[in-house]
Amino acid sequence: MVNVPTIKLQPSGDEMPQVGFGLWKVTNATCADQVYNAIKTGYRLFDGAFDYANEREAGEGVRRAIADGLVKREDLFIVSKLWNTFHDREHVIPITKQSLEWWGLEYFDLYYIHFPVALEYVDPAKSYPSGWHTLEKKIVQSRTPIQTTWEEMEKLVDLGLAKNIGVSNFQGALLMDLLRYARIRPSVLQIEHHPYLTQETLLSLAKEEGIAVTAYSSFGPQSFLELEMKRATDTPTLFNNDIIKNIAKKVGKTPAQVLLRWSTQRGLAVIPKSNAQERLLQNLDVTSWDLEEADIEAISSLDKNLRFNNPTDYLGTLHIFG
Amino acid sequence: MVNVPTIKLQPSGDEMPQVGFGLWKVTNATCADQVYNAIKTGYRLFDGAFDYANEREAGEGVRRAIADGLVKREDLFIVSKLWNTFHDREHVIPITKQSLEWWGLEYFDLYYIHFPVALEYVDPAKSYPSGWHTLEKKIVQSRTPIQTTWEEMEKLVDLGLAKNIGVSNFQGALLMDLLRYARIRPSVLQIEHHPYLTQETLLSLAKEEGIAVTAYSSFGPQSFLELEMKRATDTPTLFNNDIIKNIAKKVGKTPAQVLLRWSTQRGLAVIPKSNAQERLLQNLDVTSWDLEEADIEAISSLDKNLRFNNPTDYLGTLHIFG
Repeated sequence: MVNVPTIKLQPSGDEMPQVGFGLWKVTNATCADQVYNAIKTGYRLFDGAFDYANEREAGEGVRRAIADGLVKREDLFIVSKLWNTFHDREHVIPITKQSLEWWGLEYFDLYYIHFPVALEYVDPAKSYPSGWHTLEKKIVQSRTPIQTTWEEMEKLVDLGLAKNIGVSNFQGALLMDLLRYARIRPSVLQIEHHPYLTQETLLSLAKEEGIAVTAYSSFGPQSFLELEMKRATDTPTLFNNDIIKNIAKKVGKTPAQVLLRWSTQRGLAVIPKSNAQERLLQNLDVTSWDLEEADIEAISSLDKNLRFNNPTDYLGTLHIFG
Repeated sequence: MVNVPTIKLQPSGDEMPQVGFGLWKVTNATCADQVYNAIKTGYRLFDGAFDYANEREAGEGVRRAIADGLVKREDLFIVSKLWNTFHDREHVIPITKQSLEWWGLEYFDLYYIHFPVALEYVDPAKSYPSGWHTLEKKIVQSRTPIQTTWEEMEKLVDLGLAKNIGVSNFQGALLMDLLRYARIRPSVLQIEHHPYLTQETLLSLAKEEGIAVTAYSSFGPQSFLELEMKRATDTPTLFNNDIIKNIAKKVGKTPAQVLLRWSTQRGLAVIPKSNAQERLLQNLDVTSWDLEEADIEAISSLDKNLRFNNPTDYLGTLHIFG
């Protein structure tokens, strides 16, 4: 089985697998089997979220794998994320407990604030997942500051509900501000990261602050094609990019593997997903071989500050990335 | 004399001139005369800052102009900014009073947080201006959150020391967070803005939130050449850009005027400076004539997300723009 290195998190000292399985867009019908099979294949980290609306099914896969003796709970690194509609003080702990119940777990290894966006509470019993909109299909912000939400995130650690807490889709000055008031610092920053969005400055910040970074959408536009996002369909796929293809040929790997290795060799964790067993295995094998420094730089030079997961584009508001 | 339109600020209802005189890099030896002469030429807004280290001299120019009957205090719109080393709660009000004393004023029309960066206090009696470094030439952050600093900024309004408060060099999610806890909302956002950095998303945010925007470095790399900043010297000047030059020729204005008109026609305020009387007049005359919509778009299409005033570049740390 592929040996996946880990990244030591601060301040907990926990070890986070550098390669995991991302649960975004994994359908309910197949989720339990996919998680079970991923564990069988060697995956230990599962990157979920309330918003992905498949935590019950993912939990089922985990429980089955544990019941079958494939792994123990402590071998796994289970991740979830606080959705925007639960930023108000009174909702953070209850919704985390709800997600844990769906997973059938006592604790998350890592729990993120999903976006630096606070939205009005929506009862999950009435709308699940509610996404960005209220029951009346409006986008309504809550006035709860990030600091308040973070204080509740810290309580999750105090209560043993989360071993580590982190932030996702945060940028420079906002992350710096959080570090000023954090009693428990974020262990991990999860961000969109691929050759069209190399995030050099934000990576420098995370490195200086001892915060691990997990990349999402490592294949760039690829993840967004099924959402029929114009910016993604208008952008040439990285799998057919000449630089990527030539490097893949040279090292005898797939373009997808080259993209993941480019990220892991830059020190990031990655969380690809796949339905196909062959790709599942390939995606996991992205740390045992190396790219040459010059090739890493050639891939990085594709940067064009092109972001796909941008609320400004798909909502026309909530301009967090301005 | 040129008639300069104003922008109505929220929540005060005050009118801010859309064109002003920027005091950054104005030397102490000439500052008083330049301010006096700018007032004589028709300038009413002066954009200063503690960090520019010329508030005493700027104030001298203002006092002389008032004494000579050129203007009254209430005709002027005087702006200053809280430097990074004064973010701690106990320093905000005292240093604002110090700046007011230098200017010889009872109140600022607008007072900004200069950067979303909190640095350890440096006594101005020991180092003025201290810039980004302690007396020991180190960059040492303070742990005072922006919220604490903003609460003190609000007190400046309560005390009548500032009619309006604003933020400079803030971006998307951080500005959104400030709006969650602000008792008095920021009236103005000041940002770097030129055809190489068109800031579309941030402008959308400001517009939705009713926050006025002031552009600095409207000429792009030009402002940074005298600092011998490599990124600026490596970038083709906008004054020689074919698109800008052709539009300038067509409308019978200078390239500098076209750049300023591009900003004002996008709804922003501008704060150029000049030592030369002819350019001082030209810079003020950037609202009485129009660019065609197609020309505005052509200029906007020069955007390449190129930022010159970036601490990451000139300090190697404080990665606020990541």
